[in-house]
Amino acid sequence: MSDSPIRKALPDFHWERVAALRYKEEGSAPFRAVTRQVLFGDDALRCEWRYFEVSPGGYSTLERHAHAHAVMILRGAGRCLVGDRVYAVAERDLVAVPPLAWHQFRADAHAPLGFLCLVNQERDRPQLPAADDLAALRRVAEVAAFIRTGDDNDA
Amino acid sequence: MSDSPIRKALPDFHWERVAALRYKEEGSAPFRAVTRQVLFGDDALRCEWRYFEVSPGGYSTLERHAHAHAVMILRGAGRCLVGDRVYAVAERDLVAVPPLAWHQFRADAHAPLGFLCLVNQERDRPQLPAADDLAALRRVAEVAAFIRTGDDNDA
Repeated sequence: MSDSPIRKALPDFHWERVAALRYKEEGSAPFRAVTRQVLFGDDALRCEWRYFEVSPGGYSTLERHAHAHAVMILRGAGRCLVGDRVYAVAERDLVAVPPLAWHQFRADAHAPLGFLCLVNQERDRPQLPAADDLAALRRVAEVAAFIRTGDDNDA
Repeated sequence: MSDSPIRKALPDFHWERVAALRYKEEGSAPFRAVTRQVLFGDDALRCEWRYFEVSPGGYSTLERHAHAHAVMILRGAGRCLVGDRVYAVAERDLVAVPPLAWHQFRADAHAPLGFLCLVNQERDRPQLPAADDLAALRRVAEVAAFIRTGDDNDA
Protein backbone atom coordinates (compact mmCIF):
# COMPACT_ATOMS: atom_id res chain seq x y z
CA MET A 1 0.00 0.00 0.00
CA SER A 2 1.82 3.09 -1.23
CA ASP A 3 0.41 5.51 1.33
CA SER A 4 1.10 3.33 4.35
CA PRO A 5 2.63 5.28 7.24
CA ILE A 6 5.07 2.38 7.69
CA ARG A 7 8.17 1.84 5.55
CA LYS A 8 9.71 -1.46 6.51
CA ALA A 9 13.45 -1.87 6.86
CA LEU A 10 15.00 -3.85 4.01
CA PRO A 11 18.30 -5.75 4.04
CA ASP A 12 21.57 -3.83 4.04
CA PHE A 13 20.22 -0.58 5.50
CA HIS A 14 17.68 0.26 2.86
CA TRP A 15 13.99 0.97 3.32
CA GLU A 16 10.76 0.56 1.40
CA ARG A 17 9.99 3.61 -0.76
CA VAL A 18 13.29 5.34 0.14
CA ALA A 19 15.58 5.98 -2.82
CA ALA A 20 19.35 5.51 -2.59
CA LEU A 21 20.73 8.80 -3.92
CA ARG A 22 24.06 10.14 -4.93
CA TYR A 23 25.72 11.84 -1.97
CA LYS A 24 26.68 14.83 -4.13
CA GLU A 25 27.29 15.49 -7.78
CA GLU A 26 30.55 13.84 -8.80
CA GLY A 27 33.25 16.49 -9.05
CA SER A 28 31.37 19.09 -7.01
CA ALA A 29 33.43 18.37 -3.89
CA PRO A 30 35.94 15.77 -2.71
CA PHE A 31 34.44 12.57 -1.25
CA ARG A 32 34.74 8.83 -1.69
CA ALA A 33 32.12 6.06 -1.63
CA VAL A 34 29.19 7.73 0.15
CA THR A 35 25.46 7.16 -0.41
CA ARG A 36 22.51 9.22 0.82
CA GLN A 37 18.92 8.28 1.63
CA VAL A 38 16.29 10.81 2.74
CA LEU A 39 14.15 9.03 5.34
CA PHE A 40 11.89 11.97 6.19
CA GLY A 41 11.78 15.30 4.36
CA ASP A 42 8.48 16.50 5.64
CA ASP A 43 7.39 20.12 5.32
CA ALA A 44 5.53 19.79 8.62
CA LEU A 45 8.74 18.89 10.45
CA ARG A 46 10.85 21.57 8.70
CA CYS A 47 13.75 19.13 9.06
CA GLU A 48 15.31 16.50 6.87
CA TRP A 49 16.26 13.19 8.43
CA ARG A 50 18.82 11.41 6.25
CA TYR A 51 20.87 8.22 6.34
CA PHE A 52 24.38 8.39 4.92
CA GLU A 53 26.63 5.43 4.45
CA VAL A 54 30.36 5.62 3.86
CA SER A 55 31.86 2.39 2.46
CA PRO A 56 35.03 0.94 4.01
CA GLY A 57 37.89 3.33 3.26
CA GLY A 58 35.54 6.08 2.10
CA TYR A 59 35.07 9.61 3.42
CA SER A 60 32.51 12.40 3.36
CA THR A 61 33.43 15.90 2.20
CA LEU A 62 35.50 18.03 4.56
CA GLU A 63 33.22 21.05 4.91
CA ARG A 64 31.46 23.51 7.20
CA HIS A 65 28.23 25.51 7.14
CA ALA A 66 26.12 27.77 9.32
CA HIS A 67 23.54 25.05 9.98
CA ALA A 68 24.01 22.38 12.63
CA HIS A 69 24.04 18.59 12.26
CA ALA A 70 22.65 16.12 14.76
CA VAL A 71 24.09 12.66 14.07
CA MET A 72 23.65 9.12 15.38
CA ILE A 73 25.91 6.34 14.14
CA LEU A 74 23.66 3.49 13.01
CA ARG A 75 26.07 1.01 11.44
CA GLY A 76 29.73 0.08 11.64
CA ALA A 77 32.57 2.21 12.87
CA GLY A 78 34.89 5.00 11.85
CA ARG A 79 36.25 8.35 12.89
CA CYS A 80 35.09 11.91 12.51
CA LEU A 81 36.60 15.35 12.61
CA VAL A 82 34.54 17.93 14.50
CA GLY A 83 36.23 21.30 14.82
CA ASP A 84 39.89 20.60 15.53
CA ARG A 85 39.70 17.11 16.99
CA VAL A 86 39.25 13.58 15.66
CA TYR A 87 36.96 11.13 17.46
CA ALA A 88 36.42 7.39 17.12
CA VAL A 89 32.72 6.60 16.68
CA ALA A 90 30.69 3.39 16.66
CA GLU A 91 27.09 2.23 16.70
CA ARG A 92 24.61 4.51 18.46
CA ASP A 93 27.16 7.17 19.39
CA LEU A 94 25.79 10.72 19.09
CA VAL A 95 27.70 13.49 17.30
CA ALA A 96 26.75 17.18 17.50
CA VAL A 97 28.30 19.26 14.71
CA PRO A 98 27.95 22.93 15.73
CA PRO A 99 27.49 25.76 13.23
CA LEU A 100 30.66 26.52 11.24
CA ALA A 101 32.66 23.59 12.67
CA TRP A 102 34.78 21.82 10.06
CA HIS A 103 33.72 18.19 9.89
CA GLN A 104 34.43 14.99 7.98
CA PHE A 105 33.41 11.36 8.48
CA ARG A 106 35.62 8.43 7.50
CA ALA A 107 34.73 4.75 7.61
CA ASP A 108 37.23 2.28 9.01
CA ALA A 109 39.21 0.30 6.44
CA HIS A 110 37.15 -2.85 7.00
CA ALA A 111 33.74 -1.56 8.10
CA PRO A 112 31.17 0.79 6.64
CA LEU A 113 30.12 3.85 8.60
CA GLY A 114 26.37 4.48 8.40
CA PHE A 115 24.81 7.39 10.25
CA LEU A 116 21.55 9.24 10.70
CA CYS A 117 21.94 12.99 10.15
CA LEU A 118 19.33 15.60 10.97
CA VAL A 119 19.33 19.08 9.44
CA ASN A 120 16.98 22.00 9.00
CA GLN A 121 15.07 21.84 5.75
CA GLU A 122 16.10 25.43 4.96
CA ARG A 123 19.85 25.64 5.28
CA ASP A 124 22.93 27.26 3.80
CA ARG A 125 25.22 25.52 1.32
CA PRO A 126 28.39 23.82 2.60
CA GLN A 127 31.69 25.69 2.33
CA LEU A 128 34.85 23.91 1.24
CA PRO A 129 38.16 24.74 2.95
CA ALA A 130 40.41 27.32 1.27
CA ALA A 131 44.19 26.93 1.38
CA ASP A 132 44.50 28.93 4.61
CA ASP A 133 41.72 26.89 6.25
CA LEU A 134 43.59 23.70 5.38
CA ALA A 135 46.83 25.14 6.70
CA ALA A 136 45.11 26.01 9.98
CA LEU A 137 43.54 22.56 10.26
CA ARG A 138 46.87 20.87 9.56
CA ARG A 139 48.55 22.63 12.50
CA VAL A 140 47.14 19.78 14.64
CA ALA A 141 49.07 16.63 13.70
CA GLU A 142 46.14 14.31 14.34
CA VAL A 143 43.92 16.41 12.08
CA ALA A 144 46.60 16.68 9.38
CA ALA A 145 46.83 12.87 9.28
CA PHE A 146 43.05 12.45 9.25
CA ILE A 147 41.59 14.83 6.69
CA ARG A 148 41.01 13.80 3.11
CA THR A 149 40.74 16.50 0.48
CA GLY A 150 40.93 14.38 -2.63
CA ASP A 151 44.37 15.63 -3.61
CA ASP A 152 47.92 14.37 -3.31
CA ASN A 153 48.49 16.30 -0.08
CA ASP A 154 46.34 13.80 1.78
CA ALA A 155 48.52 12.10 4.37
CA MET B 1 35.30 16.33 28.67
CA SER B 2 31.90 17.82 29.26
CA ASP B 3 31.72 19.87 26.07
CA SER B 4 32.78 17.08 23.70
CA PRO B 5 30.65 16.91 20.58
CA ILE B 6 30.53 13.12 21.02
CA ARG B 7 28.27 11.33 23.46
CA LYS B 8 29.16 7.66 23.45
CA ALA B 9 26.52 4.96 23.49
CA LEU B 10 26.28 3.19 26.88
CA PRO B 11 24.87 -0.28 27.55
CA ASP B 12 21.12 -0.86 27.36
CA PHE B 13 20.30 2.08 25.08
CA HIS B 14 21.55 4.89 27.24
CA TRP B 15 24.06 7.60 26.32
CA GLU B 16 26.68 9.72 28.01
CA ARG B 17 25.22 12.98 29.32
CA VAL B 18 21.67 12.06 28.32
CA ALA B 19 19.23 11.82 31.22
CA ALA B 20 16.58 9.10 31.41
CA LEU B 21 13.38 11.04 32.04
CA ARG B 22 9.84 10.22 32.97
CA TYR B 23 7.75 9.78 29.85
CA LYS B 24 4.97 11.96 31.33
CA GLU B 25 3.79 12.92 34.76
CA GLU B 26 2.14 9.93 36.39
CA GLY B 27 -1.63 10.34 36.27
CA SER B 28 -1.56 12.96 33.50
CA ALA B 29 -2.48 10.42 30.81
CA PRO B 30 -2.76 6.64 30.50
CA PHE B 31 0.52 4.82 29.70
CA ARG B 32 2.54 1.93 31.05
CA ALA B 33 6.31 1.43 31.41
CA VAL B 34 7.73 4.08 29.06
CA THR B 35 10.95 6.07 29.43
CA ARG B 36 12.12 9.15 27.50
CA GLN B 37 15.58 10.46 26.64
CA VAL B 38 16.17 13.72 24.75
CA LEU B 39 19.15 13.10 22.47
CA PHE B 40 19.18 16.50 20.77
CA GLY B 41 17.06 19.49 21.76
CA ASP B 42 19.02 22.12 19.95
CA ASP B 43 17.61 25.58 19.32
CA ALA B 44 19.55 25.71 16.05
CA LEU B 45 17.73 22.63 14.74
CA ARG B 46 14.30 23.74 15.99
CA CYS B 47 13.56 20.04 16.45
CA GLU B 48 13.77 17.61 19.32
CA TRP B 49 15.19 14.19 18.67
CA ARG B 50 14.09 11.80 21.41
CA TYR B 51 14.46 8.12 22.26
CA PHE B 52 11.48 6.41 23.88
CA GLU B 53 11.51 2.91 25.21
CA VAL B 54 8.42 0.89 26.06
CA SER B 55 9.11 -2.12 28.29
CA PRO B 56 7.64 -5.51 27.39
CA GLY B 57 3.88 -5.32 27.80
CA GLY B 58 3.91 -1.53 28.08
CA TYR B 59 2.24 1.12 25.93
CA SER B 60 2.51 4.80 25.12
CA THR B 61 -0.45 7.14 25.50
CA LEU B 62 -3.20 6.91 22.89
CA GLU B 63 -3.23 10.50 21.64
CA ARG B 64 -3.18 12.88 18.70
CA HIS B 65 -1.88 16.39 18.02
CA ALA B 66 -1.44 18.87 15.19
CA HIS B 67 2.31 18.27 14.96
CA ALA B 68 3.81 15.33 13.08
CA HIS B 69 6.09 12.56 14.33
CA ALA B 70 8.92 10.97 12.38
CA VAL B 71 9.85 7.65 13.99
CA MET B 72 12.48 4.94 13.53
CA ILE B 73 12.32 1.75 15.58
CA LEU B 74 15.74 1.25 17.15
CA ARG B 75 15.24 -1.72 19.46
CA GLY B 76 12.95 -4.71 19.77
CA ALA B 77 9.52 -5.14 18.31
CA GLY B 78 5.91 -4.23 18.84
CA ARG B 79 2.87 -2.78 17.16
CA CYS B 80 1.55 0.69 16.61
CA LEU B 81 -1.75 2.31 15.83
CA VAL B 82 -1.58 5.08 13.21
CA GLY B 83 -4.96 6.50 12.25
CA ASP B 84 -7.33 3.55 12.02
CA ARG B 85 -4.90 0.69 11.44
CA VAL B 86 -2.49 -1.36 13.51
CA TYR B 87 0.97 -2.22 12.14
CA ALA B 88 3.67 -4.62 13.31
CA VAL B 89 7.01 -2.84 13.62
CA ALA B 90 10.58 -4.00 14.21
CA GLU B 91 14.12 -2.66 14.15
CA ARG B 92 14.81 0.16 11.71
CA ASP B 93 11.25 0.38 10.39
CA LEU B 94 10.11 3.97 9.73
CA VAL B 95 6.78 5.29 10.97
CA ALA B 96 5.26 8.61 9.83
CA VAL B 97 2.55 9.87 12.16
CA PRO B 98 0.64 12.60 10.28
CA PRO B 99 -0.96 15.59 12.00
CA LEU B 100 -4.08 14.67 14.01
CA ALA B 101 -3.71 10.91 13.49
CA TRP B 102 -4.51 8.90 16.60
CA HIS B 103 -1.47 6.86 17.53
CA GLN B 104 -0.22 4.47 20.19
CA PHE B 105 2.87 2.26 20.48
CA ARG B 106 2.84 -1.08 22.30
CA ALA B 107 5.83 -3.32 23.00
CA ASP B 108 5.50 -7.03 22.43
CA ALA B 109 4.95 -9.15 25.54
CA HIS B 110 8.54 -10.40 25.56
CA ALA B 111 10.51 -7.58 23.91
CA PRO B 112 10.98 -3.88 24.58
CA LEU B 113 10.08 -1.38 21.86
CA GLY B 114 12.62 1.42 21.59
CA PHE B 115 12.22 4.14 19.00
CA LEU B 116 13.67 7.43 17.85
CA CYS B 117 11.02 10.14 17.53
CA LEU B 118 11.53 13.51 15.90
CA VAL B 119 9.24 16.49 16.57
CA ASN B 120 9.26 20.24 16.11
CA GLN B 121 10.59 22.05 19.14
CA GLU B 122 7.50 24.29 19.16
CA ARG B 123 4.44 22.07 19.10
CA ASP B 124 0.91 21.74 20.40
CA ARG B 125 -0.01 19.62 23.40
CA PRO B 126 -1.35 16.10 22.83
CA GLN B 127 -5.09 15.54 22.91
CA LEU B 128 -6.58 12.51 24.66
CA PRO B 129 -9.54 10.71 23.09
CA ALA B 130 -13.02 11.65 24.30
CA ALA B 131 -15.74 9.01 24.60
CA ASP B 132 -16.95 9.57 21.05
CA ASP B 133 -13.39 9.35 19.69
CA LEU B 134 -12.96 6.00 21.44
CA ALA B 135 -16.28 4.76 20.10
CA ALA B 136 -15.21 5.71 16.57
CA LEU B 137 -11.81 4.02 16.98
CA ARG B 138 -13.45 0.87 18.34
CA ARG B 139 -15.60 0.44 15.24
CA VAL B 140 -12.58 -1.31 13.72
CA ALA B 141 -12.22 -4.65 15.53
CA GLU B 142 -8.45 -4.74 15.19
CA VAL B 143 -8.19 -1.26 16.70
CA ALA B 144 -10.66 -2.07 19.48
CA ALA B 145 -8.51 -5.05 20.48
CA PHE B 146 -5.29 -3.04 20.29
CA ILE B 147 -5.83 0.24 22.09
CA ARG B 148 -5.03 0.68 25.75
CA THR B 149 -6.70 3.48 27.63
CA GLY B 150 -5.78 2.52 31.16
CA ASP B 151 -9.32 1.57 32.14
CA ASP B 152 -11.30 -1.63 32.47
CA ASN B 153 -12.69 -1.35 28.97
CA ASP B 154 -9.31 -2.34 27.50
CA ALA B 155 -9.77 -5.55 25.56
